[in-house]
Amino acid sequence: MTLAIMMIRQLFDQETSTYTYLIADPAAGAAALIDPVREHVERDLQLVHELDLTLTHVLETHVHADHVTAAGLLRERTGARTHASAAGAPCVDVQLRHGDVVRVGDVAITALATPGHTDDSLSFLVPGAVFTGDALLIRGCGRADFQNGDPGQLHDSITRVLFALPPETVVYPGHDYKGRTSSTIGEEQRWNPRLAGKSRDEFIALMNQLGLPPPRHLAVAVPANRACGTTPVAS
Amino acid sequence: MTLAIMMIRQLFDQETSTYTYLIADPAAGAAALIDPVREHVERDLQLVHELDLTLTHVLETHVHADHVTAAGLLRERTGARTHASAAGAPCVDVQLRHGDVVRVGDVAITALATPGHTDDSLSFLVPGAVFTGDALLIRGCGRADFQNGDPGQLHDSITRVLFALPPETVVYPGHDYKGRTSSTIGEEQRWNPRLAGKSRDEFIALMNQLGLPPPRHLAVAVPANRACGTTPVAS
Repeated sequence: MTLAIMMIRQLFDQETSTYTYLIADPAAGAAALIDPVREHVERDLQLVHELDLTLTHVLETHVHADHVTAAGLLRERTGARTHASAAGAPCVDVQLRHGDVVRVGDVAITALATPGHTDDSLSFLVPGAVFTGDALLIRGCGRADFQNGDPGQLHDSITRVLFALPPETVVYPGHDYKGRTSSTIGEEQRWNPRLAGKSRDEFIALMNQLGLPPPRHLAVAVPANRACGTTPVAS
Repeated sequence: MTLAIMMIRQLFDQETSTYTYLIADPAAGAAALIDPVREHVERDLQLVHELDLTLTHVLETHVHADHVTAAGLLRERTGARTHASAAGAPCVDVQLRHGDVVRVGDVAITALATPGHTDDSLSFLVPGAVFTGDALLIRGCGRADFQNGDPGQLHDSITRVLFALPPETVVYPGHDYKGRTSSTIGEEQRWNPRLAGKSRDEFIALMNQLGLPPPRHLAVAVPANRACGTTPVAS
């Protein structure tokens, strides 16, 4: 058995502070994109090309409310298969459940069900790192007040699933709004102000009183993302 | 001899698309910041604290024209020693020359003179990665039309100093404007549109006809940075 050398590249959308990730097995020439953003299809395909890779998989952590996915366009352009939770966008090729493994070349990506931000939220685990979508953010977490979000479920996802990972596991979030790019499970256990030293009930109370305005693009982004972003671009 | 385990954290300033880097030896509890931005002093010090580190060094790749450094404030707050090229800001504690080694705990950071964007531009080499400031950017390079910039010198710095590094060396640039976070020397040799397949004369001609507007904050940032950013904040 060979040990695959994994490549990870982090990409950013300044407009919505969204992170996209390229995960690749360079030896096999295979690549996956997690949470690609529609406005960056050309950038991301150019990178895949320049790294001598073929895009074989697109993975969605959840149906996003703040940006439109590039999944559908990438599927049309490359033939990549799109993946999301069974509770997520119905347009995808493969529905993932907790524990399902996606193989990108020899790199194994394990889907972890981490609902609570939305009911379809997945995290993706690779050796040494986890892509947490909007479940666990750096020193924060996703809101839980729309798309069947549930603060108690989010607490369970973070504390029972993600915090069960080794503390040195690198956390790659779906967003950051302060210019931070990664964290670790151990750091978030110790320093995440929404979780450290707080009970489940305190977390729920805190989340229920955030009083955030609705996401700017909710009404457009959610239906577009349920169609894998292949709807016409709204002006 | 022990092999230090090095930590690298990338931080971003959305306003000016500037990357700051934390380099640390966690076992020794020592950290350096490369190119910290004045607006992010609190964020960066909080991160240093939460990682149980002491900020011992601040390193500047050059006198920046687009943002004001946090170096002076960090020195006041932590006692960290500030470092820059001997051709750079006169306010620093330590003037670096090509080949000088800065030790952050057991992590050796080697200064490489890479002038051309400015006459004081340094890159910083650690095992497996190089922080290139504005000399080499991802699929680009810094402009060379002010602060004693020189396109021919920039070409020599990139092709003779940086491109002499192993191709797998990770490139961490001083900026990116398209949401890319890292590259490698090999990728830039092959795909950098300003350099790949172009002669030195073609590169100089290309740089001389860019016709860019002056940096927005040049008149404020350069004098502020020559004073390590300790001048009053302009409104």
